[in-house]
Amino acid sequence: MKKLLDDPAEAVTDALQGLAAAHPDLLTVHHDPTYVQRKGGTPPGHVGVVSGGGSGHEPLHTGFVGSGMLDAAVPGAVFTSPTADQVAAALKAADGGAGVLAVVKNYTGDVLNFETAVELAEIDGVRVESVLVNDDVAVEDSMYTAGRRGVAGTLFVEKVAGAAAARGDSLAGVAEVARRAVARVRTMGVALTACTVPHVGRPSFDLPDDEVEIGIGIHGEPGRHRIPASGARDIATRLIDAVLDDLGTTGGEQVLLFVNGMGGTPLSELYGTYARAREVVEARGVEVVRSLVGSYVTSLEMQGASVTVAVLDDELTELWDAPVRTAALAW
Amino acid sequence: MKKLLDDPAEAVTDALQGLAAAHPDLLTVHHDPTYVQRKGGTPPGHVGVVSGGGSGHEPLHTGFVGSGMLDAAVPGAVFTSPTADQVAAALKAADGGAGVLAVVKNYTGDVLNFETAVELAEIDGVRVESVLVNDDVAVEDSMYTAGRRGVAGTLFVEKVAGAAAARGDSLAGVAEVARRAVARVRTMGVALTACTVPHVGRPSFDLPDDEVEIGIGIHGEPGRHRIPASGARDIATRLIDAVLDDLGTTGGEQVLLFVNGMGGTPLSELYGTYARAREVVEARGVEVVRSLVGSYVTSLEMQGASVTVAVLDDELTELWDAPVRTAALAW
Repeated sequence: MKKLLDDPAEAVTDALQGLAAAHPDLLTVHHDPTYVQRKGGTPPGHVGVVSGGGSGHEPLHTGFVGSGMLDAAVPGAVFTSPTADQVAAALKAADGGAGVLAVVKNYTGDVLNFETAVELAEIDGVRVESVLVNDDVAVEDSMYTAGRRGVAGTLFVEKVAGAAAARGDSLAGVAEVARRAVARVRTMGVALTACTVPHVGRPSFDLPDDEVEIGIGIHGEPGRHRIPASGARDIATRLIDAVLDDLGTTGGEQVLLFVNGMGGTPLSELYGTYARAREVVEARGVEVVRSLVGSYVTSLEMQGASVTVAVLDDELTELWDAPVRTAALAW
Repeated sequence: MKKLLDDPAEAVTDALQGLAAAHPDLLTVHHDPTYVQRKGGTPPGHVGVVSGGGSGHEPLHTGFVGSGMLDAAVPGAVFTSPTADQVAAALKAADGGAGVLAVVKNYTGDVLNFETAVELAEIDGVRVESVLVNDDVAVEDSMYTAGRRGVAGTLFVEKVAGAAAARGDSLAGVAEVARRAVARVRTMGVALTACTVPHVGRPSFDLPDDEVEIGIGIHGEPGRHRIPASGARDIATRLIDAVLDDLGTTGGEQVLLFVNGMGGTPLSELYGTYARAREVVEARGVEVVRSLVGSYVTSLEMQGASVTVAVLDDELTELWDAPVRTAALAW
């Protein structure tokens, strides 16, 4: 294992130190317990939006802390849920008096720890609504969770919920927007290589040089099946067909198309895959009106990508377009 | 070789198709010859800023086309200079009546083809100033060029030159800013793995599992030496010491610290490396006042990073801070 780090046990701490030092205008890193908070805190009277989960998926979630997206993010160890104490501290810190929305990816550990954290925060008088993201169409259950996994679609949910909070929606309103986003977003991914968790020191699975894994999760957990390594067109077709079938598009929808890199794939390949994916979407009569291409929800240095489609309506489009200023997403 | 692409010979074209489709608000891709132009063209009366070079370093340069940075970018084949015809077409297209600044990375092919292109554009009445970027302190000559290579510091030069053009500076003024930026920016990199050029199909060099290459170029060309794989602290110290020695900092300077990923390195490792690099910079009495962390000047899927230090003055800081809106850099 060659990685740009020192003690694997300190990898998350070291990265957070760098994040804090590089972005003092955007965020603050708190310790004991660890969470990342928007600089200056949640604007008074606005709903706070909080997410979190295992590290190793950067920039998700810490890179999305700032104005117009997350008010706080809670990083666990690599591929390990944050503790309930961490999450509770972030929920309390993010309360600007109008309550807090917790965006939770559907993994068993995250779900349990967020549930406990919400109870702890509510004891302290913080109103919390939770929304569960489960956009991965690849498998119904996986080694990390019962039910569908939450993957790259989480970015969409966090963006529109953050924008709803920024414009002053109530807690019920922000939660409604987030749940609508969850209902309308689906994702499927492919891995070309495995990744290596620093404190494990060896690849998380074996993938032959001539095969790819369709339907991979963001921790390297198995997907639907392995196929001989094909090309961007074949892979994009498989992924988009699965996503659109699950969404039940019939043609005429307006969508966001998001091609996400798993961490080790060059941006040029992501744009090429986006071109192929878009052709498949359009061939099914669906109109791509918004786009995002880049490595935003990753699995360490894994090579691969996921495609996410979100069916927009006027309000979700407006919320997607609303200003955002974070370390990883800004417009 | 497993990559998310179809015909390797079409990889650049496919990526440009995706870039154009994903960012219709920012840019337009022209064909025959190929170049990428800012949407709507250079504002009349403003200097155009143009750069280009081999593909495989994305988002450099095409991802920096938009407002406040590049008016046009010219992508060659992977690791291959664009032709003089391509560059000349971009120079002519980017002339808004106030002339054009060409930002050229110091590689023999780029230098020759840009020189020819400038002559062609001048025949057509376009005034052009050129600035050569040669920020890599690792080696004096390399397999691709005589003199120092142009690497990640190019981003800094393009950003401040673009900002100078956006505020309405004359061609001489924009060129002066760019040359001052070149004089004040230095970079050195490290590779943990090689990369594979699509149409070659095998890694560009061999690097044992327990060694890293210090002073690597952005095409995988050799650097200063190989060392046993160490940690982020050791590597950051080696790179920063070489960069600051070359800059001749004596303490008290205010700098931009930019940690750049080579394409296959996770963002978390880049932030951890940034933290270590910053400690070394500060221990030498130099103050980090601006920061950038991410994979902006890459070598396909190579794992590794470079550190860039730019010594700021008030004007360069103001130009760095000025608004920018491109696919890869926005604030």
